[in-house]
Amino acid sequence: MSISAALRSRVRRPSYLSKVAQAEDLIPLFPHDSYIGWSGFTGVGYPKKIPAALAEHVERNNLQGKLKYNLFVGASSGSETENRWARNNMIERRSPHQVGKEIAKGINNGNIKFFDKHLSMFPVDLMYGYYTLKKERNRLDVGIIEASAITEDGGIIPGASVGASPEIVQMSDKIIIEVNTAAPSMEGLHDITMTDLPPRRKPYLIMSPEDRIGTPHIPIDPERVIAVVESDYPDKTQPNSPEDETSRAIAGHLIEFLKHEVKHGRLPENLLPIQSGIGNIANAVVGGLASGGADFKNLRVWTEVLQDSFLDLFDSGNLDFATATSIRFSPDGFDRFYNGWKDYTPKLLLRSQQVSNSPEIIRRLGVIGMNTPVEVDIYAHANSTCVMGSRMLNGLGGSADFLRSAKYSIMHTPSTRPSKTDPTGVSCIVPMCTHIDQTEHDLDVVVTEQGCADVRGLSPRERARVIIDKAAHPDYKPILQDYFDRAEFYCLKRGWGHEPHLLWQSFKMHQHLDEKGTMKIDSWETPTFGLPSN
Amino acid sequence: MSISAALRSRVRRPSYLSKVAQAEDLIPLFPHDSYIGWSGFTGVGYPKKIPAALAEHVERNNLQGKLKYNLFVGASSGSETENRWARNNMIERRSPHQVGKEIAKGINNGNIKFFDKHLSMFPVDLMYGYYTLKKERNRLDVGIIEASAITEDGGIIPGASVGASPEIVQMSDKIIIEVNTAAPSMEGLHDITMTDLPPRRKPYLIMSPEDRIGTPHIPIDPERVIAVVESDYPDKTQPNSPEDETSRAIAGHLIEFLKHEVKHGRLPENLLPIQSGIGNIANAVVGGLASGGADFKNLRVWTEVLQDSFLDLFDSGNLDFATATSIRFSPDGFDRFYNGWKDYTPKLLLRSQQVSNSPEIIRRLGVIGMNTPVEVDIYAHANSTCVMGSRMLNGLGGSADFLRSAKYSIMHTPSTRPSKTDPTGVSCIVPMCTHIDQTEHDLDVVVTEQGCADVRGLSPRERARVIIDKAAHPDYKPILQDYFDRAEFYCLKRGWGHEPHLLWQSFKMHQHLDEKGTMKIDSWETPTFGLPSN
Repeated sequence: MSISAALRSRVRRPSYLSKVAQAEDLIPLFPHDSYIGWSGFTGVGYPKKIPAALAEHVERNNLQGKLKYNLFVGASSGSETENRWARNNMIERRSPHQVGKEIAKGINNGNIKFFDKHLSMFPVDLMYGYYTLKKERNRLDVGIIEASAITEDGGIIPGASVGASPEIVQMSDKIIIEVNTAAPSMEGLHDITMTDLPPRRKPYLIMSPEDRIGTPHIPIDPERVIAVVESDYPDKTQPNSPEDETSRAIAGHLIEFLKHEVKHGRLPENLLPIQSGIGNIANAVVGGLASGGADFKNLRVWTEVLQDSFLDLFDSGNLDFATATSIRFSPDGFDRFYNGWKDYTPKLLLRSQQVSNSPEIIRRLGVIGMNTPVEVDIYAHANSTCVMGSRMLNGLGGSADFLRSAKYSIMHTPSTRPSKTDPTGVSCIVPMCTHIDQTEHDLDVVVTEQGCADVRGLSPRERARVIIDKAAHPDYKPILQDYFDRAEFYCLKRGWGHEPHLLWQSFKMHQHLDEKGTMKIDSWETPTFGLPSN
Repeated sequence: MSISAALRSRVRRPSYLSKVAQAEDLIPLFPHDSYIGWSGFTGVGYPKKIPAALAEHVERNNLQGKLKYNLFVGASSGSETENRWARNNMIERRSPHQVGKEIAKGINNGNIKFFDKHLSMFPVDLMYGYYTLKKERNRLDVGIIEASAITEDGGIIPGASVGASPEIVQMSDKIIIEVNTAAPSMEGLHDITMTDLPPRRKPYLIMSPEDRIGTPHIPIDPERVIAVVESDYPDKTQPNSPEDETSRAIAGHLIEFLKHEVKHGRLPENLLPIQSGIGNIANAVVGGLASGGADFKNLRVWTEVLQDSFLDLFDSGNLDFATATSIRFSPDGFDRFYNGWKDYTPKLLLRSQQVSNSPEIIRRLGVIGMNTPVEVDIYAHANSTCVMGSRMLNGLGGSADFLRSAKYSIMHTPSTRPSKTDPTGVSCIVPMCTHIDQTEHDLDVVVTEQGCADVRGLSPRERARVIIDKAAHPDYKPILQDYFDRAEFYCLKRGWGHEPHLLWQSFKMHQHLDEKGTMKIDSWETPTFGLPSN
């Protein structure tokens, strides 16, 4: 078949040119119940042509719910591919993370078996064979990896993310490479390590975010590459969520806290490497660091994903180096990045998610970890995944990789969110989280627009007082304080007072939200289990 | 003052002999509200003389509740010292772990502010100053460290545990050494690493349990040593909990599971390094490995604490090397250990708890982690600490250090425990844990005497089916299955079905236990939140 000049310019391995194929011709490689790995992370660097061709095949032949796949991607892939698969009921099983309305719908209506896992652990669990236990050989059938170029050795130069591609390449019987010629080659931006299994695993010899320990490409056995497909449109990303008054207030409290820590000698003046999640609070925090007010110089970033605000931080001159497993810029952000390539890339490395989220490295570097939860409770447990304990949002992501191992484990959230009928109908500070992803043993600081609750070294009862006082919304302070006072009184009397709860009422605010549209309950009941019968 | 020949033989640093003191004379060093660190871990290697002298001082002068201390010990210390302090209401604050009736009582009645923390993280959080935030300088006032000998440099040779002693030494303004002359010197048994803080932390270059990376003693600034006290009785340990039919059945299922993994090529024939907790199930598992039936040779152990059963495993010839942060043998076990010193010690190393419980190393080695919870829920969350969500038992310990990072994260528990009135009144498999220390993202396998529930790679609804089917007690299977079926039906209908719960009833079995003495409820209610109003 004919090979475009663009494709030729990206593929430096001559033998691969004989493997160039059209996506449509590869459909027979994907029988029902196949185990498939895709490259991609946070909606960048994902394969585009073959997923679209398979979706079209299903749509054209009315195979919805009949041609289903077990799909493994480092984190979320492109919403236009994965959402379409979900809409077509083509996903039997999915791990470890996803973003998209149709996928969430499929997970929560029972069509998709979803298992969210720490993003640092997913690739090695995949290598252990934990996702392919039912198969005779513990391997994936096909891996589809997007490349921005191919080296002379046949190695893959990834695009805007690395994610779990190294391990998917290691675990796949057959590999298909989609070479994306619509975006520039990202050669030089990556530091790739492959995964050894115990007892042959080695330390990650990284002592600072700029340390390189791998190769610039994903090495590969060329004989396992069965096809090369040209991909002709760039990653379809969304604009970043804008800051608002609440997120700016949260960022302000957070920056005050960091200054306080520097002042007391617990942080150096250039801080320690920063991890920042996704969303408008994260944007506001990074934006706050970029603006003059923060006064932190020579910052370093060790994080999972970079959003547009990091470009501002680079431009401010305050950021010396950043490393992540993906750059999820907006379309405008990518333009800015490509235009400034020579300035940005000497200060930037992309690594596999097993390295970017490695507890080993996060703990060694003393990372400042910051993430947004669904809800936090008065004892500093946090829910990152399941609304009302049951409804999956996106998955755990890297939140627990960072919060468990960071030097500073920080959760930032608005103190309330609107319900349908009440602008402050949902309190993000609750008596007991309905699902727990981060435990009380893992959180140091909870920040809302109300203030900063520093719970380091505190017992649960001390923590509850600080969180209610500093972080809860005024509408909910009396309700939460009343819960805590009653729980404390009764549990101490019973000799159960370490972490007092009114256990049978602990989700009463959630029930009220479900039934009445707001968490603002009138009162707590006097607990029947409160006192011994004598 | 006069110095015994025994003490002279242990202290090779001459200048320390001028610092020899009686415990009673040191009481003025401990004013009210002092921040004190002790050596010790799981009831071995703890200071004995000064804690006893302070307790006596309080008792003699009726200072109960008036002379209170902030006490930090790597894990539990001697029950005869710490329990006595608790009985005298001498403990204001305590972290990160404890064992003892009086201490638990003090924590649960509000006398003691207790914060349980991952044992691997406690020492570095102490170094970060997180436990001394209220003090002008982020340091402990006094560290009391038991030594079995002193080197020429003044360094400390610990006894049967290392625990957090290196970091307590680093963080204490004044250091008192209790040299224990009642037990043999343990010189040669330790591999000690001190803690650097970020950005100067280094990798732990350990690739196998036998690797040495430190010094045989805790290095120390001799000028900070203000007193040396002779200690005249050995660690007061208890006999180990005996195996019973249940624990042997659990061990049997577990060993079958390990054989299955070897057979499928996911484990080498000599397995990977084993971590085993404390208690009779752990004893039965290790006992099972020592007996002929298991057939595993050349085993290695990477664990937190060694019990007597490991001596049997050494004697069986199947154990090549073991490392831990403490050896908590029974009195008979210690006799056996000292008598076999030449055979055991070439195969044994004690390290600091930051190293023995290091997620970095546990993940690298691919440890097989096994621990006992309070309860596990149908989605594979586990409660390790708080009965009825509120009453503290001992603390988190190292359970989450190991279960988060192990290659195999295994929880083993009897499927039921007796209540006062019902021999199977408490189900250890529940709809929702009342306190969560280990999340669904961290558990691979749940084993009870009923069987082995392997939940690797499964979605929550698949997990629930497997756990109820394989691990729950027959008395509770129908109750749990009914909960799950109802929850699944209603939550799927609402589009909330990822991890189905009847949220307002999720603790109904616990409530029934509290009110009626058994978790055997008659039925679940039809949920009011089940369906949209239309």
